[in-house]
Amino acid sequence: MAVYTEVSDEELEEFLSQYDLGGLVSFKGIAEGVENSNYLLGTGTGTYILTLYEKRVHRDDLPYFLGLMEHLAGQGIACPTPIRGSDGRALRELCSRPAAIISFLEGVWPRRVQPRHCALLGDTMARMHLAGASFGGERANALSIEGWRRLFRQVEARADEVRPDLAAEIAGELAHLEAHWPRDLPAGIVHADLFPDNVFFLADKLSGLIDFYFACNDFFAYDLAICLNAWCFETDRSFNITKARQMLSAYREVRPFSDTELEALPLLARGSALRFLLTRLYDWLNHPDGAWVKPKDPLEYLQKLRFHQGITGAGAYGLE
Amino acid sequence: MAVYTEVSDEELEEFLSQYDLGGLVSFKGIAEGVENSNYLLGTGTGTYILTLYEKRVHRDDLPYFLGLMEHLAGQGIACPTPIRGSDGRALRELCSRPAAIISFLEGVWPRRVQPRHCALLGDTMARMHLAGASFGGERANALSIEGWRRLFRQVEARADEVRPDLAAEIAGELAHLEAHWPRDLPAGIVHADLFPDNVFFLADKLSGLIDFYFACNDFFAYDLAICLNAWCFETDRSFNITKARQMLSAYREVRPFSDTELEALPLLARGSALRFLLTRLYDWLNHPDGAWVKPKDPLEYLQKLRFHQGITGAGAYGLE
Repeated sequence: MAVYTEVSDEELEEFLSQYDLGGLVSFKGIAEGVENSNYLLGTGTGTYILTLYEKRVHRDDLPYFLGLMEHLAGQGIACPTPIRGSDGRALRELCSRPAAIISFLEGVWPRRVQPRHCALLGDTMARMHLAGASFGGERANALSIEGWRRLFRQVEARADEVRPDLAAEIAGELAHLEAHWPRDLPAGIVHADLFPDNVFFLADKLSGLIDFYFACNDFFAYDLAICLNAWCFETDRSFNITKARQMLSAYREVRPFSDTELEALPLLARGSALRFLLTRLYDWLNHPDGAWVKPKDPLEYLQKLRFHQGITGAGAYGLE
Repeated sequence: MAVYTEVSDEELEEFLSQYDLGGLVSFKGIAEGVENSNYLLGTGTGTYILTLYEKRVHRDDLPYFLGLMEHLAGQGIACPTPIRGSDGRALRELCSRPAAIISFLEGVWPRRVQPRHCALLGDTMARMHLAGASFGGERANALSIEGWRRLFRQVEARADEVRPDLAAEIAGELAHLEAHWPRDLPAGIVHADLFPDNVFFLADKLSGLIDFYFACNDFFAYDLAICLNAWCFETDRSFNITKARQMLSAYREVRPFSDTELEALPLLARGSALRFLLTRLYDWLNHPDGAWVKPKDPLEYLQKLRFHQGITGAGAYGLE
């Protein structure tokens, strides 16, 4: 549930005057996304998204994110593209925050994921990974293994408030991941947050990927690992091997992956589960009373972590 | 900040199949309104608002609200009009809630009210009052004077938690209003919740009124009294007589009001201030910890109440 910043009439008018988008027609806060303030902006030339970047997004990263979206859209990946103002710039200020207008994507994110969604996701994710190769920007994944240790220090003392012995369980997993995290898998641009609400579908096609504000350079297979967790578990938290098989099969038809990548997948899936367990735990322990955003259950990701700990190999994801 | 109910893909598809609006193109929760779940719905034929009515709206009142919108839109008042399905019905069920699709209105509500907004509001409000005369529906104002006594009983014991002696101050005011509330002013359909976020403007014209879910039959001047409170105070809570004069003057050019109505205005304005003081106080004392909606400050309306208590007559609103 976003919209943290109210934009006054004068500020909006002044901001829009720096674009060639025609006059203001409508302006509505969107109740989606939790990081930024998002408005649906109607003008004489069409519909756009106006985003004000709130404190969780680092200002210095914005040229990378916006540049990446523009690059990927130019390569034919369905994703929002930043709109440049009359001065050629896409990133400017509004209400003392960095702000940008990006194109509006048609489509609806799936409230109930079906195997066909996973197949379409695998295909588009692979195309995105390939299309990223020609993008010049570099950004380390701040929420990869070094970041987890840092996050763990911030939640360690209070983790057991959420569940007995949780701190010890995380400590053990983190040590295991630090000892075994791979070093030399194929890498490039990954989205790193491809949850269902960031993927739009329209008439049985994938119509777009949104929200590139965690994108970074990391192992391609780590993006797959995130999606195994985000797309292939049911609401009763059981793993759906059909969804996983569809996603991985469709992916590898576009970008064939090596046995090494496939074998690394269970470990990467454990890492991805720990990453969301840690960030959700942090938000759970630190959300202010009466906050507008309901924190997500961290223990959902503890269960996913345990699933990947318990399998004997990548065969559990449905590929031979 | 609305969107309380998540609509699944299948439910949405089934719901839309009952209309002739073309295929689904987009579907986004809107972060506006606090009573209902609102979605911006794009289809092959255009943009609409899909509303799911949450518990605060009584199901039995919905035919009145939807019928009124359709009537007013038919009379040329810029307001949303309910869209009827292939079966001719505008009101149906979605996710076990009453739900309706209404037309989308262009425009933006004013974050910073200017005197010209108040003039346009006065003009349109008067036209709406006249247009309501030919509407057949009847609905008592549940939040008029009898309702305040009921509300006061629910907050009386805890009102002083918000401010010392608040309960006694409200009790005194309520007794005064009960003794002096008028009985025979010109009456008809009123909106009863014309706050700035329910009034859209576009290129210096008023482009529409929305959110008729408090509409009822009451004194026309009570609608003006609500707007004196909602539009004519500055953020520092001082009264802006220019805004009031613009609103009242524009109103009476369309629907001239009698001296009796004008003289009743200070009392009606006190009543309207008490109404919002009481409902805000109720929400303040009863909002759950961690609620998604930030309650509004009740004491803003205590200050407005005291302003109207302190004036000597309707001249304080800028009319001779």
